[in-house]
Amino acid sequence: MEIEELSTEQKIKHVQDTLFVMSGKWELPVLIAINAGNIRFKDLQRSVPNITTKVLSKELKDLEINKLVVRTIYNTSPVSIEYRVSPYCKSLKPLVDEMIKWGYNHRIEISK
Amino acid sequence: MEIEELSTEQKIKHVQDTLFVMSGKWELPVLIAINAGNIRFKDLQRSVPNITTKVLSKELKDLEINKLVVRTIYNTSPVSIEYRVSPYCKSLKPLVDEMIKWGYNHRIEISK
Repeated sequence: MEIEELSTEQKIKHVQDTLFVMSGKWELPVLIAINAGNIRFKDLQRSVPNITTKVLSKELKDLEINKLVVRTIYNTSPVSIEYRVSPYCKSLKPLVDEMIKWGYNHRIEISK
Repeated sequence: MEIEELSTEQKIKHVQDTLFVMSGKWELPVLIAINAGNIRFKDLQRSVPNITTKVLSKELKDLEINKLVVRTIYNTSPVSIEYRVSPYCKSLKPLVDEMIKWGYNHRIEISK
């Protein structure tokens, strides 16, 4: 797929597909936190500022459906559950890096 | 700014700043359409599928506030108004390109 060959409508469609998965307030913050090594629910809740239990639980389910997070249940007593980013999730790195850079620069630009 | 040196919290903050400006349903589609040469309101409304007059009008104002769009009023009769992406808006290209690529690939991945 060559971006320059796409029509305006096709570009909009692909961007909207990405936004549909990624544009919520929490998907990327949760992924960044898991990727940083917070693999248990309690650690995640601590590392993502202001997220509620209910929202974090829903986000983790949605991220699993989108094949971005893998949930593993260990048959210990009590049962323990770990969340990890999937190999496919690594495909988001260039996008997330661009978002980090742009957000950083935009704050500087807007305060000029 | 080196991404690898940022803390998880800093990364999340910058991503959230980007999401705050860019995560709506319409900001990027409108920018892509202006960038493709649709510089009048009516052309924009035609080229962004399903956007309403009211929403397009609000989006254009927000994009102006965020220094991404420049509105020029020509003193013709009747007055004519043109919208163009700002030079600063070009800073979004790497991000938008990544979103186009990821959205394109994600549709393939999810349908596997």
